[in-house]
Amino acid sequence: MNTLKWGLIGGGKGSQIGPAHRLGARLDGYFQFAAGALDHRPDEGKQFGIGLGLDPNRSYGSWQELLAGERDRDDRVDLVTVATPNNSHFEITKAFLSEGFHVLCEKPLTMTVEESLELAHLSETTGTICAVNYGYSGYSLVRHMKAMVSRGDIGKVRMVFAEFAHGHHADATDADNPRIRWRYDPAQIGVSAQFADCGIHALHLATFITDQRVKSVSADTVSLIPSRQLEDDAMVNFRMTNGIVGRLWTSACAIGRQHGLAIQVFGETGGLRWTQEQPNQLYYTPVGGRTTVIERGEADLSPEADKSSRVTIGHAEGMPLAFANIYAELHSVITEDLENGQSAGTSLLPLAIDGAESIKAIYAVAKSGQANGEWVEIN
Amino acid sequence: MNTLKWGLIGGGKGSQIGPAHRLGARLDGYFQFAAGALDHRPDEGKQFGIGLGLDPNRSYGSWQELLAGERDRDDRVDLVTVATPNNSHFEITKAFLSEGFHVLCEKPLTMTVEESLELAHLSETTGTICAVNYGYSGYSLVRHMKAMVSRGDIGKVRMVFAEFAHGHHADATDADNPRIRWRYDPAQIGVSAQFADCGIHALHLATFITDQRVKSVSADTVSLIPSRQLEDDAMVNFRMTNGIVGRLWTSACAIGRQHGLAIQVFGETGGLRWTQEQPNQLYYTPVGGRTTVIERGEADLSPEADKSSRVTIGHAEGMPLAFANIYAELHSVITEDLENGQSAGTSLLPLAIDGAESIKAIYAVAKSGQANGEWVEIN
Amino acid sequence: MNTLKWGLIGGGKGSQIGPAHRLGARLDGYFQFAAGALDHRPDEGKQFGIGLGLDPNRSYGSWQELLAGERDRDDRVDLVTVATPNNSHFEITKAFLSEGFHVLCEKPLTMTVEESLELAHLSETTGTICAVNYGYSGYSLVRHMKAMVSRGDIGKVRMVFAEFAHGHHADATDADNPRIRWRYDPAQIGVSAQFADCGIHALHLATFITDQRVKSVSADTVSLIPSRQLEDDAMVNFRMTNGIVGRLWTSACAIGRQHGLAIQVFGETGGLRWTQEQPNQLYYTPVGGRTTVIERGEADLSPEADKSSRVTIGHAEGMPLAFANIYAELHSVITEDLENGQSAGTSLLPLAIDGAESIKAIYAVAKSGQANGEWVEIN
Amino acid sequence: MNTLKWGLIGGGKGSQIGPAHRLGARLDGYFQFAAGALDHRPDEGKQFGIGLGLDPNRSYGSWQELLAGERDRDDRVDLVTVATPNNSHFEITKAFLSEGFHVLCEKPLTMTVEESLELAHLSETTGTICAVNYGYSGYSLVRHMKAMVSRGDIGKVRMVFAEFAHGHHADATDADNPRIRWRYDPAQIGVSAQFADCGIHALHLATFITDQRVKSVSADTVSLIPSRQLEDDAMVNFRMTNGIVGRLWTSACAIGRQHGLAIQVFGETGGLRWTQEQPNQLYYTPVGGRTTVIERGEADLSPEADKSSRVTIGHAEGMPLAFANIYAELHSVITEDLENGQSAGTSLLPLAIDGAESIKAIYAVAKSGQANGEWVEIN
Repeated sequence: MNTLKWGLIGGGKGSQIGPAHRLGARLDGYFQFAAGALDHRPDEGKQFGIGLGLDPNRSYGSWQELLAGERDRDDRVDLVTVATPNNSHFEITKAFLSEGFHVLCEKPLTMTVEESLELAHLSETTGTICAVNYGYSGYSLVRHMKAMVSRGDIGKVRMVFAEFAHGHHADATDADNPRIRWRYDPAQIGVSAQFADCGIHALHLATFITDQRVKSVSADTVSLIPSRQLEDDAMVNFRMTNGIVGRLWTSACAIGRQHGLAIQVFGETGGLRWTQEQPNQLYYTPVGGRTTVIERGEADLSPEADKSSRVTIGHAEGMPLAFANIYAELHSVITEDLENGQSAGTSLLPLAIDGAESIKAIYAVAKSGQANGEWVEIN
Repeated sequence: MNTLKWGLIGGGKGSQIGPAHRLGARLDGYFQFAAGALDHRPDEGKQFGIGLGLDPNRSYGSWQELLAGERDRDDRVDLVTVATPNNSHFEITKAFLSEGFHVLCEKPLTMTVEESLELAHLSETTGTICAVNYGYSGYSLVRHMKAMVSRGDIGKVRMVFAEFAHGHHADATDADNPRIRWRYDPAQIGVSAQFADCGIHALHLATFITDQRVKSVSADTVSLIPSRQLEDDAMVNFRMTNGIVGRLWTSACAIGRQHGLAIQVFGETGGLRWTQEQPNQLYYTPVGGRTTVIERGEADLSPEADKSSRVTIGHAEGMPLAFANIYAELHSVITEDLENGQSAGTSLLPLAIDGAESIKAIYAVAKSGQANGEWVEIN
Repeated sequence: MNTLKWGLIGGGKGSQIGPAHRLGARLDGYFQFAAGALDHRPDEGKQFGIGLGLDPNRSYGSWQELLAGERDRDDRVDLVTVATPNNSHFEITKAFLSEGFHVLCEKPLTMTVEESLELAHLSETTGTICAVNYGYSGYSLVRHMKAMVSRGDIGKVRMVFAEFAHGHHADATDADNPRIRWRYDPAQIGVSAQFADCGIHALHLATFITDQRVKSVSADTVSLIPSRQLEDDAMVNFRMTNGIVGRLWTSACAIGRQHGLAIQVFGETGGLRWTQEQPNQLYYTPVGGRTTVIERGEADLSPEADKSSRVTIGHAEGMPLAFANIYAELHSVITEDLENGQSAGTSLLPLAIDGAESIKAIYAVAKSGQANGEWVEIN
Repeated sequence: MNTLKWGLIGGGKGSQIGPAHRLGARLDGYFQFAAGALDHRPDEGKQFGIGLGLDPNRSYGSWQELLAGERDRDDRVDLVTVATPNNSHFEITKAFLSEGFHVLCEKPLTMTVEESLELAHLSETTGTICAVNYGYSGYSLVRHMKAMVSRGDIGKVRMVFAEFAHGHHADATDADNPRIRWRYDPAQIGVSAQFADCGIHALHLATFITDQRVKSVSADTVSLIPSRQLEDDAMVNFRMTNGIVGRLWTSACAIGRQHGLAIQVFGETGGLRWTQEQPNQLYYTPVGGRTTVIERGEADLSPEADKSSRVTIGHAEGMPLAFANIYAELHSVITEDLENGQSAGTSLLPLAIDGAESIKAIYAVAKSGQANGEWVEIN
């Protein structure tokens, strides 16, 4: 396997999306985290990068430094991920594409349509990849939905209902908290808040799964917290190429919903339903028939689904992260406790003595089972 | 961050557990995959390791070769994971501990209690870690259950009901398939099949969460497929230190259940319920009160839970794996398509042109919203 | 208790709604089914009524006959339920109100607003009740939602999202089936099909729970099956008195959804969520807090909820209908089997011998429990 | 339809089970509530019966009075339901069977096996029905499970897992409350508490669905609240005729579970799963295939299922009870408000004016839909 070099811009300390990129890039070993400019404050960014294991020479103070530092290296990064505030996406992405770097940019790609088209053109002329991180399209069963639709399993698609409605910005008493306020500031965000931030993911899923584009929209955008200049809730009706009717609801004030990304696709001969919070099940109903549960990892899924699934059926997709916690403790015990002369027994780590207890239980169960359930003591 | 070197024994091509270890070890950057002996067939193992990116000199043909090759290196692996057949765990683990390597061994640690205790003793005398991979204890909300129990949120624990019941070995016509048959062969497996393979995970969760050990058991073990010499279904009643009543059901013939690992803990003042297939929710009920849903990633969870959670509330734990699929395609497009002169447009990757479509939609939604929902065309 | 006399017009053989009215009217013993004109075909209607236990003199051939026959009786019916085709509601209801009968009319009350207002006025002048059957507002937890909203548990309501989306008219090859076609025929139905048939229930719930009226609407109505003249899917945005933002989706082509009546209400300090298919749970989330499950029948619900709940917590509301099946078999065995000299043992009825088996099991369990789980045989 | 006369013994004020019997008996019009002896306190019982609409002459002070009063009437009750404390079941049932009445007795039928067998014999010699109220077997989809098993849809049954675990007696500080204490008093209850009270229902479902009897049991019975002389939690392993392996868990201390009656049946070629709290769905999985959701009321269910279902697919079984609440209000408004000169508008009842609002909304939606979603005001 040819491991590529990877650089990250933005995604520093406290970032929500930074960790997901670092995990995602490293997970399969396809990319090695080789360079970063993680914060708009140079020193903080450098230190954070070094703490994450970057070579101090490649933990840069700004994206400009990163570009200058990497451009002429023989082992320069192959791919740069841009996870900075929205209004800087265009400038940064353009600069890196121009120098022949591949770029994965967080959404929205740019602030205007013209800028996005310019990047698309630049990508073509420079022979680079300019990708946008619609990461939810990476779920195995989302890809299986796309494959099912494509091969005609639900017939011609009639309608799509997409949702991304959560309740995390519903507290009016907290609306002026800077952590939240900037999300509704036209100067920083542009013409749309909740739709551009969350709804657009749901809209992308609709286009991704049906392989059609959006032709027209009719929107009801409202600020449920009146002090906001931009919408925190929107209902969007739309039409797609090929005549599909679309409906999309997005909200930041739907108290009780944690994430709320979901999509239903209805065709002439069947319907499909998927939600991000339970990504391992896809519900499929043929017209006039019973709903069946498609499980991620089951036999005979589409190649697209199989290729994007890493753990066996019935395990939550997050199982490797549970395993990672075991490894994190091993790391902590090895690098800290043992060096400080502490016993490993203080951690959450299952140790040989726990293994011994298990073996005792196995023998006791076998013995009791053979003795018609007689109680067997374990010493 | 001090990245440690890691070696894997077993877990070769087609292994279910190998990928989870590789993902888990690499996820946070704590361990670098530096050496492997991945298959009992030397050549296959070496090639598979090289394909995974190992240095050919450190992709070994056997665990003995790995031990010999790593023992005297300055940059030798710090930790070895043993994911070989059960009856080889003891010998391999013992050999590596003896040479001062830390070991994470798949469960069951050994075939006999005496062997496990010998490893525990060896671990102590050599100052090495000998850990067992009860990986399900790594879930964030499992750790939160443990913390809640420990700090008394449900009072003194009265009873635990644990389950690990799936249906993947229920087909009698497939029972002689070698892929399944070995799991019920006493020569390879020992005194217990389904309980030792799956039930033991549920039992470990019971001990992990309550911080108590099992004192005695009464088991009803049966072979629902009569040709099997070992049990494929068992009900185990048990008692724990501290008087807790335990019940555990495990089955391989529960058709319709995919994984079925779940645990309920009932105390004097409350109850808790968690299932592996929906690991991001923990159900808590105070005695006489209403059931509440604890979400992984919510504010004010226990430190143990926070530390073992990587994505924000509402996202499935598997979200980084969805992101990883985006990165996998980037890798494929960069290393294959572009080199072959193919356009990137043939992949599942969202590109700049998709980004442009999104921006168009955002502007159209904003415009329609300001115009009382008038339909806006997108070109 | 003063049992009133009740008459039913429409709701004959094969009717979906007729049985629900007969069960609902009789359930508590408040009404005795005393008269009926159940079919537009006089003979069929009379026979069906007699089969249901009506006095042959009061099983009428038409609503006109029923009106004429009941008008002057001393023991005339107190209440008439009108469950005929929509375009006859006005004429029938008007006729009965004019003669001093109370009326419960199926929705929609009339075909035009003017007719409904005329009935409202007539009801006032004659001192009669003219009620409309928005039956879903009768669920215990719907009433509890209303009480919670009314007493301020979720603060000022900001938004309501209501749904009634099913998939039972999604089969284009079946669209000309008379059983379905009439529902989309403007001549029989008026200006709206799916919204008037189903959506209106969801809209009523929104007004019922918030105690506000609808002020304005913006609708996207479509015929997903193109041959239909009226809509089979609609998205309706609306505003309520008091400024509440409303959204309502209704569909008859949402394959995989069986009923799909659901409502979410979001206020300044909390959110509520309820679905008709699982009517015994109401999900409540305070802003910034955890979701809690309110169970029908739990202690300390609102008086409105308590009054409208008949079975204890944890039982499905339908439990009395399960009991009714036991009584139905008793009736069948007593009136048919025994008279024909058959044994009762051929039915599904649990008999004394089954009771004896249970007692044996109870003794055996107690004995085994006292003997540390020793197996006890039952003869 | 031949409506039979029905009498109830026990089930007086505050009884949990009395209302379910009255609703169940009356629901289909098969039985008319004609006589009662509802309380062991004669006056209270008489008054309560009269309040429920009984003829004062037939609201008796004791079961002996009821027997004496009904025995020689021409219009005597056909069926008597016995819902008194367990230790009186035998005496009362025997007395009524002896006089030729049919009896439906609450479970447990008697305190000893011998008594049950005596009643079975008496039933036979007198030509009467002696039924036991295992009411949960009346659910439509439970009957469909039985039909599926019987016709071989899941092959030879291998195992049954039944549960009835709730948390309503988990509060040790409330254990001496007389409302709860009697349930654990051997003098009143006999040899078993929780198993005899709840577990036996789950066991009956196992025998009902598989059409097999229990052959042997091994039980682990415990008092999780130590002051109790009888078990509040039990795990019962059992074997059935035909070799089926059975497992049954029952508990009164499973905090967070409201009712917890559930059953899983696993055969050689498929598995089935049903829970009482969501009785309208049955989950069926063929071996090696996908789980499908069987909905109560769907087309082509078994005759047993169809016969015991009253509302159409997608409606909760409890829908007629929601309708009944509309009728209850009509009754209240007609008999109270109007007589007191109050307006009907004070109730929860939807009135003509609400109907008018709906029609306005329908017209507005249609108009807006035809005008591309233009907002339409409602006056």
